[in-house]
Amino acid sequence: MPRYALQVEYHGHPFAGWQRQADQPSVQGAIEAALARLEPGPHTIAAAGRTDAGVHGLAQVAHCDMSKDWDPFRLSEALNHHLKPAPVAIRNAARVPDDWHARFSAVERRYLFRILMRRAPATHQSGLVWRVNHRLDADAMQRGADHLIGHHDFTTFRSTICQAASPVKTLDELRVERVDTLWGPEIHFHVRARSFLHNQVRSFVGTLERVGAGAWTPGDVANALAARDRAACGPVCPPQGLYLAGVGYPDDPFI
Amino acid sequence: MPRYALQVEYHGHPFAGWQRQADQPSVQGAIEAALARLEPGPHTIAAAGRTDAGVHGLAQVAHCDMSKDWDPFRLSEALNHHLKPAPVAIRNAARVPDDWHARFSAVERRYLFRILMRRAPATHQSGLVWRVNHRLDADAMQRGADHLIGHHDFTTFRSTICQAASPVKTLDELRVERVDTLWGPEIHFHVRARSFLHNQVRSFVGTLERVGAGAWTPGDVANALAARDRAACGPVCPPQGLYLAGVGYPDDPFI
Repeated sequence: MPRYALQVEYHGHPFAGWQRQADQPSVQGAIEAALARLEPGPHTIAAAGRTDAGVHGLAQVAHCDMSKDWDPFRLSEALNHHLKPAPVAIRNAARVPDDWHARFSAVERRYLFRILMRRAPATHQSGLVWRVNHRLDADAMQRGADHLIGHHDFTTFRSTICQAASPVKTLDELRVERVDTLWGPEIHFHVRARSFLHNQVRSFVGTLERVGAGAWTPGDVANALAARDRAACGPVCPPQGLYLAGVGYPDDPFI
Repeated sequence: MPRYALQVEYHGHPFAGWQRQADQPSVQGAIEAALARLEPGPHTIAAAGRTDAGVHGLAQVAHCDMSKDWDPFRLSEALNHHLKPAPVAIRNAARVPDDWHARFSAVERRYLFRILMRRAPATHQSGLVWRVNHRLDADAMQRGADHLIGHHDFTTFRSTICQAASPVKTLDELRVERVDTLWGPEIHFHVRARSFLHNQVRSFVGTLERVGAGAWTPGDVANALAARDRAACGPVCPPQGLYLAGVGYPDDPFI
């Protein structure tokens, strides 16, 4: 059973999330259905990160086991053919060792969050950004974010339904960038860690947005972290600006 | 009857084009319907450029006449409220003199065309780019484009149904830019002139794509222009990568 790594892009809107569900469309379900058109199933694929409803993939990574020895390029082309018209695309495929695992071999996850700052509703980027009506101070948000970088107990920034064994994680990067786009000024949050707690990125962004708006000081973020109390978190922001932007492995299978 | 200039963004996909039609959705029709929610109609608005089906607006400009004296900001907010859920947004509104005309006062139109170079189907940017399967040589395309800049008879690059009085126009800018995006490498064409012939930008881009792919030389573009023959044009490219990106006026009403 040759194993293949798949780099997957998807639009989160039509899906109840990554994970297969009995009665709702999922990204996993769409890819497994496409695999079943290539080889009789059932197919069960594993992913580096199980994204929530509305969250997008830019370079999610999953793996699948096939009976036939597929050329990776032909496998990606065949899957893209059968995935249509679902907004899911295989950007890359690679043969990997039989013990390689998209989730357990991963040593880093990277997320991007986009905020669009303007009053007019989004048209082209609807569902792809969190639109806020007001300007945000990127420097203040970066000063708040700096308190979160490093090895901490992130209980404050963890969903109450999070199933991780420990709330202690190491956050390697939380970079706040102002970007001018065709649609107006955006704030991009670049977030990187070995692994994340449930709703951690959306809890960070919702809290930092309060700092950018001037309602919180950067120091309030340090206090919220130190409280180790979910009630100390700012509002959790909506999912539609969030992208799983990349997954790191000791050896990148796609290079 | 106070007159207002409106800066309009829209997604071209759901519309048969800018221009109002009896039996199909149009951007003009959507805005006129929203205006009728504010003041009894009928309303007839005029736009700087009447975009075709599938073509997007980033900063189209139109004008409308109102009975009441509206605060421009409140007018834009009220229109955006009534435009929902159509993917049309008023990004800006401004009071203008009674003889100001969105089309006839305009002295410059700017278009953007986006090509996404990758094999995987587009997901987030579906309908917003022309996706091509192959890499394009931006430098070769720029050398081809340079032959088109200036004052020329553009018969070759003009739709046979074009209603302009003359095929002679002055092209002020045709700049080819390679841009790395979240979705992969793109080619952006920045095109600027006082006015355009019907399908002129899509005829340029379709022809230059052949140069970028190596099927045409840059010099072939000069020959096609000199032929002054529609049959000498390359293939006209699809509409979904095209954006009306801006309109210039002697005095910018939005500053």
